[in-house]
Amino acid sequence: MSAPDYGRAFALLRAEAGDAWGAYTRHAFVEGLKDGTLSRESFLHYLRQDYVFLIHFSRAWALAVVKSETHEEMLAAVATVNALVAEEMQLHVGICEAAGIPQEELFATPERAENLAYTRFVLEAGYSGDLLDLLAALAPCVLGYGEIGARLGREKSSETYADWIATYAGEGFQGDCAAVGQLLDSALERRLGKDFDKSPRFATLCEKFRKATELEVSFWQMGMTP
Amino acid sequence: MSAPDYGRAFALLRAEAGDAWGAYTRHAFVEGLKDGTLSRESFLHYLRQDYVFLIHFSRAWALAVVKSETHEEMLAAVATVNALVAEEMQLHVGICEAAGIPQEELFATPERAENLAYTRFVLEAGYSGDLLDLLAALAPCVLGYGEIGARLGREKSSETYADWIATYAGEGFQGDCAAVGQLLDSALERRLGKDFDKSPRFATLCEKFRKATELEVSFWQMGMTP
Amino acid sequence: MSAPDYGRAFALLRAEAGDAWGAYTRHAFVEGLKDGTLSRESFLHYLRQDYVFLIHFSRAWALAVVKSETHEEMLAAVATVNALVAEEMQLHVGICEAAGIPQEELFATPERAENLAYTRFVLEAGYSGDLLDLLAALAPCVLGYGEIGARLGREKSSETYADWIATYAGEGFQGDCAAVGQLLDSALERRLGKDFDKSPRFATLCEKFRKATELEVSFWQMGMTP
Amino acid sequence: MSAPDYGRAFALLRAEAGDAWGAYTRHAFVEGLKDGTLSRESFLHYLRQDYVFLIHFSRAWALAVVKSETHEEMLAAVATVNALVAEEMQLHVGICEAAGIPQEELFATPERAENLAYTRFVLEAGYSGDLLDLLAALAPCVLGYGEIGARLGREKSSETYADWIATYAGEGFQGDCAAVGQLLDSALERRLGKDFDKSPRFATLCEKFRKATELEVSFWQMGMTP
Repeated sequence: MSAPDYGRAFALLRAEAGDAWGAYTRHAFVEGLKDGTLSRESFLHYLRQDYVFLIHFSRAWALAVVKSETHEEMLAAVATVNALVAEEMQLHVGICEAAGIPQEELFATPERAENLAYTRFVLEAGYSGDLLDLLAALAPCVLGYGEIGARLGREKSSETYADWIATYAGEGFQGDCAAVGQLLDSALERRLGKDFDKSPRFATLCEKFRKATELEVSFWQMGMTP
Repeated sequence: MSAPDYGRAFALLRAEAGDAWGAYTRHAFVEGLKDGTLSRESFLHYLRQDYVFLIHFSRAWALAVVKSETHEEMLAAVATVNALVAEEMQLHVGICEAAGIPQEELFATPERAENLAYTRFVLEAGYSGDLLDLLAALAPCVLGYGEIGARLGREKSSETYADWIATYAGEGFQGDCAAVGQLLDSALERRLGKDFDKSPRFATLCEKFRKATELEVSFWQMGMTP
Repeated sequence: MSAPDYGRAFALLRAEAGDAWGAYTRHAFVEGLKDGTLSRESFLHYLRQDYVFLIHFSRAWALAVVKSETHEEMLAAVATVNALVAEEMQLHVGICEAAGIPQEELFATPERAENLAYTRFVLEAGYSGDLLDLLAALAPCVLGYGEIGARLGREKSSETYADWIATYAGEGFQGDCAAVGQLLDSALERRLGKDFDKSPRFATLCEKFRKATELEVSFWQMGMTP
Repeated sequence: MSAPDYGRAFALLRAEAGDAWGAYTRHAFVEGLKDGTLSRESFLHYLRQDYVFLIHFSRAWALAVVKSETHEEMLAAVATVNALVAEEMQLHVGICEAAGIPQEELFATPERAENLAYTRFVLEAGYSGDLLDLLAALAPCVLGYGEIGARLGREKSSETYADWIATYAGEGFQGDCAAVGQLLDSALERRLGKDFDKSPRFATLCEKFRKATELEVSFWQMGMTP
C-alpha cells in the first residue's frame, strides 16, 4: 500500500526516516485501534496524554506563525493553530467527558516523560532553527496521523474506535494534511530552491523528521502502558 | 476626559507612562484624523506602513500563544491573532485598493526605520522575556488605538476619516481591547499575585510599556512625513 | 547531613522538590561512584552521554547570557559558559581518551532519549520563559552535582572514581556552585523582591526545578543501562 | 583600495549591500575620526551609546552559541562573546573614565532610538531565524569596523583618535574579523553547500546584511547629533 500524497517533501522525508516510519504508523497501538483490541484503559490514558501533547503542539504551530516569512506561510500556520485549538482539543474534551473524565481532571493530567520529550524537542527545534527546522519536526505528527487515519479508514475491522478513525480519515483532517504538505514544499522551495533535497540543509531536516518519528513511536509505547 | 476602562493594569501602566501617553494618543496625526486636516498622502503612507507593522505585530501575538501558560491565555492570544490576520489586515488591503494602491504594491512597501524599530523591540521583548514582558510591549498599540478610537468616535468634527475611526471606536475593536486588558490583569495576577504592582517586576514592565508608547509616537511622526 | 550552602533560593527549591531530590542525589549510580561498585562500562556510557548533554547544557547557559538584564547577570552566565565549554567538556574528552574512546567516537555518540528529554526541557523552559525560568531548570544539574561531589568527597570508600569525585568536590566547582546560587538569589530578588518565595511565580519555578530534578533521576537510570 | 580579506561570503555580502556599505564605512563620522575633526562631545556621546550597543550585541553573540550546530561554531561564538564582554566593553569603560564619565553614569546612558532599532533587529533576526540569519545581521558591525580600522590605520592624518583606531586596526581585532569571516563561510557551506550563493536563502541573508549596514549608517548619524 503506498503512502498518501501529501507532496514531494513528505515523500522524501518519509523515505529517509526508514524503519522508524513503519514502527510509528504500524505500531501495535495503531493496529489495536484498527481491530478494536486496544484496551479502553489504554485508549483513555493515551487520549489524556494526547490532550497535554496538543497544548504544546499548538504552541509549536503558533511558533510557526512567528517564524513565517510570507503571507501564505502565516495564513497556513494560523489555520493549523485554529484547527488544533478550536477543533482537535475540543474533540478530546468531548470523548473524555463521554467516558466519564471531567474537564478539570483532563486538564490536570500529569505529563508523562515520553510526552514531554517529544513536545520540548519540537519547540526547541523551532526556537533554535528557522521555519524549516520547525516544520520538519512538526510534520511527522500531522502527516503520520493522516496516513494512519487514511489506512485505518480502509482497513478497520471493528467499530470500537470508529469515531477516532473517522476524525483522522475524514475530509477535514485529510485536507489539513494536504495543506501542511504543500506548506512544507513551498517553504522548502522558497528557501532552498526547486532542488531542495540536494542542499545539505535537507539532510539536517531529515534528521529532525526522523527524530520526531522516533518520539512518536515512544508516545504510542507509552499509550500502551497506562 | 478619563481613559476607557480596560482593566487595572492598563490604568497603572498608562499612568506610569507619563507624558509619553498623551504625546501618543493626542499626536498631531491623531488630531488630523479627528478634524480631517490630515493629508490623504500622509494617511495612505501611514496605512501602508501600518500594513507592514501588522505583519510583525501578528507574529508577536502568535508568540504570545507560544508563551501562554493556561488554556485561557492561549485562547485569548489566538483570538487576537485571528482578529489581526483575518480582519485588521484585510481592512487595510480594502482601503488601499479603494485608494488605487493594488495589493502587490501594498505588500512590497519598503519598511521605514521607525516601523522596524517598533516591531523588533516588541518581538525581542517577547522572545527574551516571558508572557508579561511581551504583553507589556504589545499593550500600548492595542489599548492606545482603543482609547484614540473611543475619543475620536465622540469628538470627530469631520467625516474624512470616519471609516478608520469607526473601526477602532466600534464594538468589535472595543471588545478586543477589553479582552486584552483582562488578559493583562489575569496574567499579572497569576504570576505576581493580586498586588502585582508592588513587585519589582512591575517596574520593568512599566518601562517596556513606556518604551513601546514612545515608539508609537515615532510611528505617528513618520506617518506625517511620507 | 545537611545540604551545602548555595544560597537561600536553592535551600527553598531543594526542599520543595521533595523526594525527587534524594532520588537524584542518592541514586544507585551515585552510590556506585562512591564505593567503586559502578561498572566501568556504565561509567563510560554515562560519560559519553554526559558529553552530549554538556553541548546542549552549554547552549542553555549561553541563553542565560541572552536573557540577562544586568551586567552582573551577564558576567556570571558568561563565566559558566566558559567553565563548561573550556573545562568540563575537555575533562570528558580527556577521561574518554584515556579509556580508549577517541574524540571522533565521543563526538558521534548517539543521543539517548532520556538525555534529549532533559536538555530540550531546559532549553524550551528558557526560550519560553525569562531568566528565572531558565535558571530554575538549570540549577538542579549544577547544584546537585555540587552537593553530590561534596558528599562523595567526604564519604567515598574507593579510589576507582576518585578523579570524577575530585572534580565536583574541588574548590573550582564548589566555587562555581556558590556563584550560581548567588546568581539565583540576586536574579530572584531583583525581579520579585526580598520575599520572592511569596510570589506565585516562585511556585512555577519550583515546578521547573522539580521537573529537571526528575529528569536527572532518569539520566542516572539511563547511565546504568548501557 | 580593496576590502580586507575576511573570506568569500563577506566579499559577496559586501558587494550586494551596494552603496549602503560605502555610506557606512566612509561616513562623515568615520572621516572625522581619521582626520581628528570629530568633536570630542560627539565622540563621547557615540562611545556611551556604543557601550549600550555592546550589551545587546554581546547578547546576540551569545545567541549564536545557542544556535550553533557544531563544536567549532560554538567555540568561535564563545570566543567572540568573551572578546566583547571582557575586552571591548572594558575599553569603553576605560576611555569614558579617562574622559571624566564615571562607570555608573556610563551604565545609566539612556538608549537612543537608532541604537535600539539596530540591536533589536539583530536579536530578532537571530531568534526568528537560524544561525545564518543571525550571522548575516551580526557581520556588518564586526567586519565593517575591521575594514574601517584597517583603512584608518593606514590613512589617519591626526593622532586625536589614534587609540580608538589602534584598537580596530590592531592584530587582535583583525584576527577576530578573520575568525568571524571564516565562521560565516563554514556555517554557510555546512548548511547550503559550496555554492551557497546560488541558494535562494543567500538572497535573504544579503537583505539582512544590507539592513544591518543601513542601521550602522543611522548609528553614525546619531553619533554626530549628541
